[in-house]
Amino acid sequence: MKAVIYNGPRQVSVSNVPDARIEKPTDAVVRMTTTNICGSDLHMYEGRTNFEIGRVFGHENLGQVIEVGAAVDRIKKGDWVCLPFNIGCGFCENCERGLTGYCLTCNPGTAGAAYGFAGMGPFQGGQAEALRVPYADFNCLSLPKDAQEKEDDYVMLSDIFPTGWHATELAGVLPGETVAIYGAGPVGLMAAHSAIIKGASRVFVVDMHDDRLKLAESLGAIPVDMRRCDPVEELLGQTDGLGTDRGCECVGYQCCDRHGRETNSFTMNSLVKSTKATGGIGVIGVFIPEDPGASDTLAKEGKMAFDFGAFWFKGQHIRTGQANVKAYNRRLRNLIHVGKAKPSCIISHRLGLDEAPDAYKHFDARDKGWTKVVLKPGA
Amino acid sequence: MKAVIYNGPRQVSVSNVPDARIEKPTDAVVRMTTTNICGSDLHMYEGRTNFEIGRVFGHENLGQVIEVGAAVDRIKKGDWVCLPFNIGCGFCENCERGLTGYCLTCNPGTAGAAYGFAGMGPFQGGQAEALRVPYADFNCLSLPKDAQEKEDDYVMLSDIFPTGWHATELAGVLPGETVAIYGAGPVGLMAAHSAIIKGASRVFVVDMHDDRLKLAESLGAIPVDMRRCDPVEELLGQTDGLGTDRGCECVGYQCCDRHGRETNSFTMNSLVKSTKATGGIGVIGVFIPEDPGASDTLAKEGKMAFDFGAFWFKGQHIRTGQANVKAYNRRLRNLIHVGKAKPSCIISHRLGLDEAPDAYKHFDARDKGWTKVVLKPGA
Amino acid sequence: MKAVIYNGPRQVSVSNVPDARIEKPTDAVVRMTTTNICGSDLHMYEGRTNFEIGRVFGHENLGQVIEVGAAVDRIKKGDWVCLPFNIGCGFCENCERGLTGYCLTCNPGTAGAAYGFAGMGPFQGGQAEALRVPYADFNCLSLPKDAQEKEDDYVMLSDIFPTGWHATELAGVLPGETVAIYGAGPVGLMAAHSAIIKGASRVFVVDMHDDRLKLAESLGAIPVDMRRCDPVEELLGQTDGLGTDRGCECVGYQCCDRHGRETNSFTMNSLVKSTKATGGIGVIGVFIPEDPGASDTLAKEGKMAFDFGAFWFKGQHIRTGQANVKAYNRRLRNLIHVGKAKPSCIISHRLGLDEAPDAYKHFDARDKGWTKVVLKPGA
Amino acid sequence: MKAVIYNGPRQVSVSNVPDARIEKPTDAVVRMTTTNICGSDLHMYEGRTNFEIGRVFGHENLGQVIEVGAAVDRIKKGDWVCLPFNIGCGFCENCERGLTGYCLTCNPGTAGAAYGFAGMGPFQGGQAEALRVPYADFNCLSLPKDAQEKEDDYVMLSDIFPTGWHATELAGVLPGETVAIYGAGPVGLMAAHSAIIKGASRVFVVDMHDDRLKLAESLGAIPVDMRRCDPVEELLGQTDGLGTDRGCECVGYQCCDRHGRETNSFTMNSLVKSTKATGGIGVIGVFIPEDPGASDTLAKEGKMAFDFGAFWFKGQHIRTGQANVKAYNRRLRNLIHVGKAKPSCIISHRLGLDEAPDAYKHFDARDKGWTKVVLKPGA
Repeated sequence: MKAVIYNGPRQVSVSNVPDARIEKPTDAVVRMTTTNICGSDLHMYEGRTNFEIGRVFGHENLGQVIEVGAAVDRIKKGDWVCLPFNIGCGFCENCERGLTGYCLTCNPGTAGAAYGFAGMGPFQGGQAEALRVPYADFNCLSLPKDAQEKEDDYVMLSDIFPTGWHATELAGVLPGETVAIYGAGPVGLMAAHSAIIKGASRVFVVDMHDDRLKLAESLGAIPVDMRRCDPVEELLGQTDGLGTDRGCECVGYQCCDRHGRETNSFTMNSLVKSTKATGGIGVIGVFIPEDPGASDTLAKEGKMAFDFGAFWFKGQHIRTGQANVKAYNRRLRNLIHVGKAKPSCIISHRLGLDEAPDAYKHFDARDKGWTKVVLKPGA
Repeated sequence: MKAVIYNGPRQVSVSNVPDARIEKPTDAVVRMTTTNICGSDLHMYEGRTNFEIGRVFGHENLGQVIEVGAAVDRIKKGDWVCLPFNIGCGFCENCERGLTGYCLTCNPGTAGAAYGFAGMGPFQGGQAEALRVPYADFNCLSLPKDAQEKEDDYVMLSDIFPTGWHATELAGVLPGETVAIYGAGPVGLMAAHSAIIKGASRVFVVDMHDDRLKLAESLGAIPVDMRRCDPVEELLGQTDGLGTDRGCECVGYQCCDRHGRETNSFTMNSLVKSTKATGGIGVIGVFIPEDPGASDTLAKEGKMAFDFGAFWFKGQHIRTGQANVKAYNRRLRNLIHVGKAKPSCIISHRLGLDEAPDAYKHFDARDKGWTKVVLKPGA
Repeated sequence: MKAVIYNGPRQVSVSNVPDARIEKPTDAVVRMTTTNICGSDLHMYEGRTNFEIGRVFGHENLGQVIEVGAAVDRIKKGDWVCLPFNIGCGFCENCERGLTGYCLTCNPGTAGAAYGFAGMGPFQGGQAEALRVPYADFNCLSLPKDAQEKEDDYVMLSDIFPTGWHATELAGVLPGETVAIYGAGPVGLMAAHSAIIKGASRVFVVDMHDDRLKLAESLGAIPVDMRRCDPVEELLGQTDGLGTDRGCECVGYQCCDRHGRETNSFTMNSLVKSTKATGGIGVIGVFIPEDPGASDTLAKEGKMAFDFGAFWFKGQHIRTGQANVKAYNRRLRNLIHVGKAKPSCIISHRLGLDEAPDAYKHFDARDKGWTKVVLKPGA
Repeated sequence: MKAVIYNGPRQVSVSNVPDARIEKPTDAVVRMTTTNICGSDLHMYEGRTNFEIGRVFGHENLGQVIEVGAAVDRIKKGDWVCLPFNIGCGFCENCERGLTGYCLTCNPGTAGAAYGFAGMGPFQGGQAEALRVPYADFNCLSLPKDAQEKEDDYVMLSDIFPTGWHATELAGVLPGETVAIYGAGPVGLMAAHSAIIKGASRVFVVDMHDDRLKLAESLGAIPVDMRRCDPVEELLGQTDGLGTDRGCECVGYQCCDRHGRETNSFTMNSLVKSTKATGGIGVIGVFIPEDPGASDTLAKEGKMAFDFGAFWFKGQHIRTGQANVKAYNRRLRNLIHVGKAKPSCIISHRLGLDEAPDAYKHFDARDKGWTKVVLKPGA
């Protein structure tokens, strides 16, 4: 079958790979109809990880089941399903408690597995004609009758919508509260979408790209353009000097200060300042334990010069980590189904699988207007 | 009346000061019978803060009400009461939600007030013959009939017992879980006492002082002597390499590494390593927004070289800040009353008020055996 | 001053009463500008309670502070404030935990106090030119600059909006879930408004009055007309036979079955049937410990023939009681301020104080179109 | 193999049945070494259910794995395991959220499955030489090295220990609170054990049997003998007239009043009275949707004359249902392992499988001293 594979830094191709197939009786094979390129794919694309040559990309996947193993009870051939990017077994201590992003079974020796991802186990990605899904009964989210009609919304349940939602959960957003979201990439926009659905009173989105800030505004958020103002001052000014009730980090370790300099502590230290005393901060932007390619000494070791004193003095809390997609995907699916959530609104490009190499190039270059790319293997 | 006052770095005296009196109709005046010296008093004693000359020390206070203002309804003359170290108004947004350590009224311009404390408002301390208690109906914890008999237990409700308890709440300790506590000072020991009362399965206490480690063991905890082993390796070894479910920081910004070098990131980075993925970390050791006297450049600015990458990768959470004493003091009082908690077990010295200057000297010098000093103004 | 007073069953008048005044240093006096008639006023109006002759009605109150006592710190003369219907002291065990509807101080011997209410303490009501507010710093909700412009929205923060919100909290509504609300009176409508603000996927409202069902629909809910269908069957049919995730009881002990017969178990037993196994039920409709006037033997004793077996077998939970208004009123105020909540949409009549007797008559007769009456004492 | 089978009302025998075997690739077969008789087995024994002739009893099971299916990854031959009485699939909406007592897969058409139980699916029980365990990776709790040494403690993880624990969770017990437990049968005693482990200040246990009350006292609880006092009055007297913070129902629909008359509302109405306003009530005593054999008219329909008015007026909550064993069994296992829990203390008889018929007779007759029977199939 055809798949988007990694050939080395900034080199991808659409090539033939062995067909996805049932390897264990708990597997299913899903024909891919929609599969997204994610910002985190770029870490691998750029060669900053140990992603192996020949691996298939793609962890935001949706399609139709074409085969199930002998031990699969719930999922049937023909079902339309969306796959959470993180793969869980369903029976380890973490999966049991709903922490499916930290499965202790699927990627032995660490906590957490995913499709087509460096360091997240041997699983192939879904930017391909088909995908093998382990523990299919546990990992497949069944979709309702409008699966195909709303395919571009439902595919967002694989990652960015639950991930944005998770940011607001980690921060502890309650209805009526104020929230500041740093970063208006796809996940930050989904965090804004989530906070608004939950009834936040005012949602601020901090970024420095016009197109993203406009999207934030169209979702009902208040854009804060950090090229034109100091975001901390702006947020304090909007909240009687107290700071917002909650804050979300949706950028990650490559975050830049107002002058565009990569400074891994910028968003976190800004959040400590712009969040009120006793407030909560949720972090879903990716930070990594080591980053040898970084220019900053601390950053090389995965460390940052964090304002821990101010953080403690304000009695804040920080909760972190990748989303446990399954904790939210049923309820978010229902919101899409009744039309109260529409995460597809941020898609900028719908392309065929063959167009993937070109899409990676544009997306990696942060070319204007390339906010979110959706690939259609079957088209 | 007589009171322990600050005369400059490492200089205290027992001197005459104006009598505590009703200043507002919501006040009470309490005759002090037991008042403790706290480790945090030493920050002021050592002159590392802006504590004013002539101020009265003491935020761990218990005594008998001798006068109440015209607007006081609940508290009566003759009541035995213990006073939370933090002073709340009872009606601001934070007090309303139980966050009484972050009162927005009592110390305008910041969040949080306390008796006899630098930067925590104009309130005098209780190392004196009497104490003025603002918003007395809100701030006084009434004690039962055995108030005098168990005075040395009940006085711990003012600070260290709820503060130790808070560490375990911030970390999210559940019955049956494993907990690592860094620091076996009075608060760390109270955190261990708390975790054991709550039904933790195994509680590890990390320290480098024999007497403290022995106290920890006598409370039912497992001592980890960091002079003899690397605490992270020891804790991982005891937990199948996964780390403890929860961790508590009970040292603060002056924490030292295994070689006795002050390294403000030592406990936090150790906690990230020795706590399992998805685990919780509670921080009640004090960290401060700036520390001009520190030798380390980052520490001067209140920053630390924090392992944020590992912290994020493990999906942990950190919750911080001083204890909201009133959130726990009723229930902890009840546990003392029925004999299921006995926080006085860590007291090493019971002294008269006049002996305070000498006690400060020994306590500041960390002289062996001076774990906890209780002053008896009335004796 | 003029006030609406109770003269016996179905007899009210606007009469002169002694002026509201400062009685304790913690009091404030508020000039009433908007004060509502509530469905629960009718219990007293109809003479089914021990409400004393001469008492002033009114527990849904908003106005401007005209005087404060010597111990009042936060509230100032001139402030616009909305008063929670339940009066708390701020310092008892229940108020401390946010359970301000169950204050142990204000109405000694029981838990809970309110303005102008039978059995809820000696406090006069606010259907008058002015109101005495006890513990003013604790009980007054300060309103922002648009206080007068949005007075008809903000007044709903005194009772029905937080009470409807409370129903959804008691039931445990999460975003994306389905909710059934029994009763489309003002509180039921506010419960629907609340569930929708919180992001429920589908909100069903069960009632038998056209005008109310239309209002429910205009709020975004799905009306279920129990004259035309069995509500349990309808709800099961809409949820694949499983039942809704959550259910709210917003009618109370005088609820009627489909044939209009008063049957105090009707809504509760229907909720057990129409709520899914493991689901949550919130009850804010009033049920009373005895009802001598009831025709049913069990109802006289405050009992009902409850389907406890089915309730247990389904592993459901029920949470009950009046709203702790202060737990929500700040955040709901903020939602009104930014325009994301608009509880005034259910007002049918805005009248002068003098028109109160006539309004009571129409409201008590459930005359068509009299959904919610707002009185304007100053007009 | 040999098994304890049902031959009709009050007739059981140890007979040969087909060997337990792998039926699906996700199954395991466990050789039974310890299996208990439970109070709920008596409902079937007495013929008050639709339990089929020839079915094997036993839902409290522990043993060693002798075979696993092709799709079983975690559990290996030779593992010592304890089996939760309720069988979950691990992937339905309820299992995913930890509500494994309400699995939607294992017993289609209802929520919840169990071994050897009327109405809980076709699964055989474990009072036999071996047991088939469905979804073995999900349902087996692995035991540590002391599995055999502490077998009589670990077997209680199958049901009564987590069920007693669940009662305290449903009631919302916090450290330092007071708790009243109605019923000192095995589950009530385990609820007392649980509340004490969690740090409750005072735990009252209400019953009318000397041997049970003595066991309660030996666990650290305060016995309340309802033959000698009215339990409601006694509990109010012990709590300043306010009632206990929490209450647990551990009897069920066959509960009797002080005079020994079966009155299905007795414990619930007593709990409403003896629990404080705003308090929580947890119900794990079994109540059933219909009970044709009951003498009371309401009871026949599964209804009770419940004091709903008082319940609402006090703003209490009730949470119900069978324990989701997997939510607690890992942590409770750890407490047994370190010696902080010892549920075997209530065992009165350890017998061979052949002695089961005699044991059922004595246990059903409530013969003095027959508190808990453990069968040893292998002995």
